Amino acid sequence: MSDVHDRERLARVAWSGIAEPGDAVAGALVGALGAADALDWLRDATARLDGGGAVEQGRLDRGGAADRDGSAAPGRDGEPGRRHPLDDPRLGRAVRRWAPRLARSEPAAALAAVERLGGGVLVPGDRAWPAGIDDLGPEAPACLWVRGRLDLGAVPHGAAAVVGARAATTYGERVAFDLAAGLATRGVAVVSGGAYGIDAAAHRGTLTMAGHAVVVLAGGVDRAYPTAHARLFEAVLDGGGAVVSELPPGGLPTRSRFLQRNRLIAAMAGATVVVEAAWRSGALSTAHHAARLLRPVGAVPGPVTSMASAGCHRLLRDGVAVCVTDAGEVLELVRPAGGAPEPERPQDVRLHDGLDHVARAVHEALPRRTGHDVTRIAVTAGVTADEALGALGLLELRGLAARTGDGWRVRPGSVV
Amino acid sequence: MSDVHDRERLARVAWSGIAEPGDAVAGALVGALGAADALDWLRDATARLDGGGAVEQGRLDRGGAADRDGSAAPGRDGEPGRRHPLDDPRLGRAVRRWAPRLARSEPAAALAAVERLGGGVLVPGDRAWPAGIDDLGPEAPACLWVRGRLDLGAVPHGAAAVVGARAATTYGERVAFDLAAGLATRGVAVVSGGAYGIDAAAHRGTLTMAGHAVVVLAGGVDRAYPTAHARLFEAVLDGGGAVVSELPPGGLPTRSRFLQRNRLIAAMAGATVVVEAAWRSGALSTAHHAARLLRPVGAVPGPVTSMASAGCHRLLRDGVAVCVTDAGEVLELVRPAGGAPEPERPQDVRLHDGLDHVARAVHEALPRRTGHDVTRIAVTAGVTADEALGALGLLELRGLAARTGDGWRVRPGSVV
Repeated sequence: MSDVHDRERLARVAWSGIAEPGDAVAGALVGALGAADALDWLRDATARLDGGGAVEQGRLDRGGAADRDGSAAPGRDGEPGRRHPLDDPRLGRAVRRWAPRLARSEPAAALAAVERLGGGVLVPGDRAWPAGIDDLGPEAPACLWVRGRLDLGAVPHGAAAVVGARAATTYGERVAFDLAAGLATRGVAVVSGGAYGIDAAAHRGTLTMAGHAVVVLAGGVDRAYPTAHARLFEAVLDGGGAVVSELPPGGLPTRSRFLQRNRLIAAMAGATVVVEAAWRSGALSTAHHAARLLRPVGAVPGPVTSMASAGCHRLLRDGVAVCVTDAGEVLELVRPAGGAPEPERPQDVRLHDGLDHVARAVHEALPRRTGHDVTRIAVTAGVTADEALGALGLLELRGLAARTGDGWRVRPGSVV
Repeated sequence: MSDVHDRERLARVAWSGIAEPGDAVAGALVGALGAADALDWLRDATARLDGGGAVEQGRLDRGGAADRDGSAAPGRDGEPGRRHPLDDPRLGRAVRRWAPRLARSEPAAALAAVERLGGGVLVPGDRAWPAGIDDLGPEAPACLWVRGRLDLGAVPHGAAAVVGARAATTYGERVAFDLAAGLATRGVAVVSGGAYGIDAAAHRGTLTMAGHAVVVLAGGVDRAYPTAHARLFEAVLDGGGAVVSELPPGGLPTRSRFLQRNRLIAAMAGATVVVEAAWRSGALSTAHHAARLLRPVGAVPGPVTSMASAGCHRLLRDGVAVCVTDAGEVLELVRPAGGAPEPERPQDVRLHDGLDHVARAVHEALPRRTGHDVTRIAVTAGVTADEALGALGLLELRGLAARTGDGWRVRPGSVV
């Protein structure tokens, strides 16, 4: 994991402990200056804050890192007419919320902690950095903390998010398990959140088929949340999957971090499928994140009498999601254009398949026992006598009609 | 039922016994000449057929009724460039299939038979003729045989078709019953096909709420099909509903007539809802008829593990239908613009409703037992100390935070 210069990597590690997940002000600053220069800038701004309040009313002195080393900071001079991040009026407030965390920041220690677990960090530019994350723009995480192997590019057909309610039904868990197992056999990595219910069923289904499971946590990767899933997460790692977070080791999962975590799930997957979700459910936020990223969204229908499916039906009615019922249909979302077509859904061949409407009508008009003559059959069927005669020949060939002494009837055994 | 001239009415009665349901050649002929003149024309053409084959190769002598009484036949001279029905190459074959039935046609006897049952016929122009039927064009029925009251215009909010599989599940029957009952209470007539399964459940749900039930049969209205539903159909009539068919009394239901019957159901309803349908199911034909008529189509989702819902999910995936889960959503399809809005779906009020993200983050950062000072809470929440202080005041007002000797904590009992 040394594709990216160590100074920048360590600065991103520091930022991941300083800014809350989804902090777009931090993201814009890091994007404009680079993580290391942005950190230097923050140190200077914090020092001035402590010294006498130069950071005021959101209007900032542009002094600091970027000035100190000249024009090195990328994007510093932006396009004309586009506000530079350093002019962002939110920056003054941001510095005051970042400052206390900057003082406690120990990126090297955090990195050492994850490495003791056999993990590490990924930053943009690393080969294994999931490209889809970049679509989050300034809300992209500074880095990803990873245990196991998060090389989605190495999975043949990308990744699908399979998410849903913690309060899932037996039905929902079964569907999530089967969907994930089906995706795994088709070479699709399955991303989910490690929670009770749908998430866990999706991870288990993936593992059953030796697929690539990705658990995205809302807290640090050093702690299993929920703790009851510690063994499940170990199984994911043993199976070659990954446990991922944007928070450093020790990071606690909070409500807002769960919601921000959902944007990562959506961004890492080519498509997001919601298996069960109540009318108001966090899983819907994952779907909406995916929709905002213009990624396909699927929803699995369920009984309308089940509140656990109400959120899925809401997504369908609102046009946010398309209806998906099996892994093949999810695969269509993940790679709409490529790959081999799914086999046709097996269809039962019906008695009348391949017959035109005249032949069908004549077949229906045939008596079961004693035969009728062609004229009578034609009248019953509402066709001409010529048409009836032609159709009877065809039906005889197909084994559906039989001649009798006095006419025609259904061939015994040909009607169920 | 005497809004329309008796000669025309009786001719339409005759045509309903001569042409099979959905026979567009007959419909075009009747539309062009009028039913009575078309019948006279058919008599002449049949006589020539018997006499020596003037009706040959689909090219017809235009002699007959229309010539006999001059230019009375409506549409006889059509627009230039548009083929006149008498030039239709299918007409020669049609005459040969109509001729045997013409010979047996006894419209007055058929009319007397339905009147003995207390019924009658409706033809276009009658006040109670369902206007939606006309959208079928040349495939519209010559007349409707009606027992009971089919005055859809007298129902406050029109009609919805609720259809589905005979091989329904308990789930599907319950949903059909509830949907129909909900539509009935909202002043919507419920149209269905009288079959086992979803159809019967829809009729029963309508009757439960004293709604207007319409049974559209594939055979004559003098015979209950299936016979086990004779009492159900009587209950429909007792409740002020109607039993309808395009076939004269004595008409037998056949496979093709079931499929044609479905076009009538779709045409009589402002919207069609499929409750359960297998991957291949006749109920899908009703949905497709409705779609061709540009009428809204709804599909009720169900478990993806249930083959009885596979056809509904297919309609959703193909974009033929929208997802509907209750009667209110069906009502939106029946009258998309008008009427009072449905009440908002009841939503549970959550702890954090109305709080901004700062207040939410601060609330989550509050310790449960011993208090923390504002700075520590601000760091945990990732907000500035000023923001934390403001949020704490708000949370205190909302009863969500409490002061302690050394700081702030969650107010006991405010977190579930």
